Amino acid sequence: MANYYIQSNDNFELIEERKKCSFDTQTLATLYYGGVDKLKKKRDFEKFIENLPEFQNEKPIIFMSRLERFEVNSKKCVAFLEHFFNEVETSNPNEAAMFYEKFFSYEGSPLSLHFFVFLPNILNSMEGKQQEYWLNLVMQKKIIGTYAQTEMGHGTNLRKLETTATYDKESDTFIINSPTTTSTKWWPGNLGKTCNVTIVVAQLYIDGKCYGPHSFMVQIRDFNTHMPLPGITVGDIGPKFAFSSIDNGFIRFNNVKIPRKFMFMKYAQVEKGGKYIKPIHEKAAYGSMVFVRSVMIHQQAQYLAMACTIAIRYSCIRRQGELDDKTKEVKVLDYQTQQYRLFPQLAKTWAFICGGKYILDLYNKVNQEMSSGNTDLLPQLHCLTSGLKAVISYQVGLGIEQCRMSCGGHGYSHASGLPNIYATQIGGCTYEGENMVMLQQCARYIMKIIDTTENNESTLKNNKLFGYFFKNYNNQKHNNIQNIFEKISYYTAIEVKNRLNKLKESGIKHEIAWNECAVDLCQAAKAHIRVFLCFVYNEFIKKIDDLHIKNTLNLLKELWETYELNQISAAALKYNLISGEKLDEIKIEMYNILKKIRPHAVSIVDSFDFSDRDLISVLGRRDGNVYENLLKWAQESELNQYEVLPSHTKYLLPMTNDNKKSKL
Amino acid sequence: MANYYIQSNDNFELIEERKKCSFDTQTLATLYYGGVDKLKKKRDFEKFIENLPEFQNEKPIIFMSRLERFEVNSKKCVAFLEHFFNEVETSNPNEAAMFYEKFFSYEGSPLSLHFFVFLPNILNSMEGKQQEYWLNLVMQKKIIGTYAQTEMGHGTNLRKLETTATYDKESDTFIINSPTTTSTKWWPGNLGKTCNVTIVVAQLYIDGKCYGPHSFMVQIRDFNTHMPLPGITVGDIGPKFAFSSIDNGFIRFNNVKIPRKFMFMKYAQVEKGGKYIKPIHEKAAYGSMVFVRSVMIHQQAQYLAMACTIAIRYSCIRRQGELDDKTKEVKVLDYQTQQYRLFPQLAKTWAFICGGKYILDLYNKVNQEMSSGNTDLLPQLHCLTSGLKAVISYQVGLGIEQCRMSCGGHGYSHASGLPNIYATQIGGCTYEGENMVMLQQCARYIMKIIDTTENNESTLKNNKLFGYFFKNYNNQKHNNIQNIFEKISYYTAIEVKNRLNKLKESGIKHEIAWNECAVDLCQAAKAHIRVFLCFVYNEFIKKIDDLHIKNTLNLLKELWETYELNQISAAALKYNLISGEKLDEIKIEMYNILKKIRPHAVSIVDSFDFSDRDLISVLGRRDGNVYENLLKWAQESELNQYEVLPSHTKYLLPMTNDNKKSKL
Repeated sequence: MANYYIQSNDNFELIEERKKCSFDTQTLATLYYGGVDKLKKKRDFEKFIENLPEFQNEKPIIFMSRLERFEVNSKKCVAFLEHFFNEVETSNPNEAAMFYEKFFSYEGSPLSLHFFVFLPNILNSMEGKQQEYWLNLVMQKKIIGTYAQTEMGHGTNLRKLETTATYDKESDTFIINSPTTTSTKWWPGNLGKTCNVTIVVAQLYIDGKCYGPHSFMVQIRDFNTHMPLPGITVGDIGPKFAFSSIDNGFIRFNNVKIPRKFMFMKYAQVEKGGKYIKPIHEKAAYGSMVFVRSVMIHQQAQYLAMACTIAIRYSCIRRQGELDDKTKEVKVLDYQTQQYRLFPQLAKTWAFICGGKYILDLYNKVNQEMSSGNTDLLPQLHCLTSGLKAVISYQVGLGIEQCRMSCGGHGYSHASGLPNIYATQIGGCTYEGENMVMLQQCARYIMKIIDTTENNESTLKNNKLFGYFFKNYNNQKHNNIQNIFEKISYYTAIEVKNRLNKLKESGIKHEIAWNECAVDLCQAAKAHIRVFLCFVYNEFIKKIDDLHIKNTLNLLKELWETYELNQISAAALKYNLISGEKLDEIKIEMYNILKKIRPHAVSIVDSFDFSDRDLISVLGRRDGNVYENLLKWAQESELNQYEVLPSHTKYLLPMTNDNKKSKL
Repeated sequence: MANYYIQSNDNFELIEERKKCSFDTQTLATLYYGGVDKLKKKRDFEKFIENLPEFQNEKPIIFMSRLERFEVNSKKCVAFLEHFFNEVETSNPNEAAMFYEKFFSYEGSPLSLHFFVFLPNILNSMEGKQQEYWLNLVMQKKIIGTYAQTEMGHGTNLRKLETTATYDKESDTFIINSPTTTSTKWWPGNLGKTCNVTIVVAQLYIDGKCYGPHSFMVQIRDFNTHMPLPGITVGDIGPKFAFSSIDNGFIRFNNVKIPRKFMFMKYAQVEKGGKYIKPIHEKAAYGSMVFVRSVMIHQQAQYLAMACTIAIRYSCIRRQGELDDKTKEVKVLDYQTQQYRLFPQLAKTWAFICGGKYILDLYNKVNQEMSSGNTDLLPQLHCLTSGLKAVISYQVGLGIEQCRMSCGGHGYSHASGLPNIYATQIGGCTYEGENMVMLQQCARYIMKIIDTTENNESTLKNNKLFGYFFKNYNNQKHNNIQNIFEKISYYTAIEVKNRLNKLKESGIKHEIAWNECAVDLCQAAKAHIRVFLCFVYNEFIKKIDDLHIKNTLNLLKELWETYELNQISAAALKYNLISGEKLDEIKIEMYNILKKIRPHAVSIVDSFDFSDRDLISVLGRRDGNVYENLLKWAQESELNQYEVLPSHTKYLLPMTNDNKKSKL
């Protein structure tokens, strides 16, 4: 039972907090990282990287121009590839990702897409010989690649992509072309300046017939000069909310020829002469989308964990205002409003972590089953990942902003790291499927299965995640919050289903009726995701042996449940699941839980085991020495290179200085 | 009945939208700007400024480094001061502010604090002779000033500021000193590099006795060289979420001497020899805070108006997915989810505009009364501005983000302008009083006046804004949404008041009891602000003569009311003010209102009459020619200066190029 993050010369306010620890932070950190070995590996990587020459005397990234970032990161890329094969068990994708993450900040690097999208696509969607050929080039470090799918005019509706790949019988090649302005590929990471090859998703045309979007490998820059090849216009799309270290790019193809065998041929194939062979598993492509969203859940939770760490540590250092003792200002974390801002975020972090762990396990199971041809669980996984991605990315965004604002003015400075964590994370609401579309995909499956109910032939009755839709709720008295969440989800889904049916019965087409119900359908999806999170949170805690850890996480879970119930209380009241009096009691209970969490807060966030390099935050430093380091940090400001700005000397000084030779 | 924003060569999708206009956009714009003359003046300024040489061939600000921004803005400052006195009726502060706004983007300039804080402070808080002296220096453009109040360690709790101003009898001076690291002044705009004088708020000490915080004028840089004066350490605090064009600064004083007469002496005074004279009106200082918050309401509404303009225009250009006609993609604004994201923001914009107009009128009234010694209305105004500032700044932030996310990937690019509008606006949750503190200040007044109720001696019974707290609700049947909002506010306030009293009766000190109820107190404040907004929204529309405009704004108001009711439906159910069935009906009605607003949406946002220079957005362009201009905009990217990045040639090319002399 100790907090292992205390060191001499730390800020005494944080030492005071850490001494209150009632559990073993090492045990909680192990739980977070999923095992002693993983935690150890992470720390080993950190230590190894910290000592590399490329990481000495680093200037904070936020002070760098984009060109400077590329300078620093390109240098690190070389070091990364030099050490990667020595230090990392490359057959272990988690370890590989961990090593990458520790090398580069969460803003990414020139190799981000190469590692996390390009390479997996080669591994998953090329047939054997192709794969061997391209993997060989990757291993030789000859190519750096990315994945160009979205276009200026089309993101969500892939079927309408405009880039074409036309088979030319004579030369046995595909001709890649960008027929319109809106067909310009737009957004692919690292496409603008870094990559020399890219996967291009284009409409396949053979003999004038369109076979829909397929993937093609296209070389875009000369390997010797790195200049764009003929017919190719490529560049950076300009600054974004975050990810300044990534050259998200655009590319236009003016009838660029590629060999036929550069089409990805694991699933669909085009034979010499133009014969098209359909893929056997239609759902296979589906899998990679689901995988990325599965990984995103954990990633999003991690952003919130970072924000909580920064804000909770700082809230124990910052003193402002008085309570009963008029002579001493209190730590701002002692205010109920501050606790109410921050602790629900911490409770959510752990809910999302539990969700992320569960989903990754489920993904692995589904993936295994799929390799033996069984795709039964895929629709469930698709439903859950879509809904979770949407709910979590949005809630994490709100949560980070609460963390940021709870730090007052300093939260608004890039010194806190929080503006950039927010700006980076919030992209997750949009990429990998726009959230409104995601929620409706989740709802689509729910609508489908509750149709089955009405037919009384559901195979999902005993399903842990969806079975509750098939309970008989008419006579069942509710007893706990999880039941209330289930009933809310059930009634919400039934209600919108009925409205949908009524509209269709009145003669309205399905798509129009669906659109009329779209907002309520999103509600149904969210309600189901709440049930899922509640289930996995409870399951996760049940399995914990260490009683101190169990009690601590239980507090967070109770906070999460009462907070969520409070958020959704209108539905609870409407469906008569609880009385107003009982809701009031639960609200007061929630305030009490906040007080119970208070003494453990710093130790809980410490156990995420983020290094100062991870957080990139003056406010969130482990040692808590915030104020002196704020002053130090500010010295790096671009403007502080000059005691008097050149622009001041040029424009403003002649004006203020005019006929003014004496002091006041 | 026409939309006057149609021009030839516009995007045909926008022309189609604008042709549907059922009201006169000129009339609505006039209403927004508060008069034909004001609208005209605004447009005249725009035209005048657009044609100045300083504004030709402007590079978008987002591509500039901070040093470049200072170069451009300093040049514009000179032009600004050159034309200001010729073009502007300087006695009209609105006109002056408008001219400034049209000159600089919403990110500010080296003169921001000088104009909007420094100068008003001279006008409001200096006694006659002082004022004359310093105003003279301002008019001669000898000084550029700012206002240094917040310190590294203290923002909200001004009474605990650490900077000292110690009266030295011998030399008849004050000695300004920064005794600790945390006493470093931190955040004042334009302090870092631009200003040569600043107002400093410091604890006044005379003969060892502390008289609390007072204001002092301090010269910080040499007028000839602009170098910091002896004893002064000053600089920029580094990059922030936004406001890159402003040098928010830090400053430390090492026993800097200033003449006694540099203390602001309109209220408190220190005579030669050290005699302290107390201010007559304790509440006078109060007034300037209230003023800034009053102005903020409109400013915040304006940020949301900008975001709505960008997102709604773009949503009529963007086509994605199909509804019933499978051959044609639909405008994304035709999706219910998109309407539900955007139209409530538009409805809120107008609610906040009505709130802003009402509050400014009230401020002027209060100010007039105060000059004749009557401060009766000040506590009401203080309550409202505090609560409104908190509610509106937070809701505007959420709203802008909805607008941004509704633009999909392009919303995440700085090309949309939306990331920067958000990052700029969201500062409003923190500056001029942290929102949680603001809500509690609002609640404090509510708690105070409902105490009076219990004594049955309220003077507020007939007050339009607070009178509803003194109605007898026991027998009254509700009839409309406004009544429901009133009752929710009333019951919420009474409930928390009772809990507060109970805690105190049980022996808990007031401050502790207050803290235990703080979250609920914030709820009470928000509930009251909802009532206020509902009241002013209705009042505003009542006064409109033009029937077409009235109908249009009525739609928005109905959307606002039903949306808000939906948000607060838990309380409506808990207090038994409405049935679940009725709530469902109102929800369906809300979806119908969305459809009714749809055809007018573009014309409504057009009527905010923002110029393309105001919006700084490729997506929000008046002409709607988005895609070709996205491509053009991207060319300015820092990375696109090079076809091959120098860092690529240096680090990555040697790696990929290694032993690879042939093409694939």
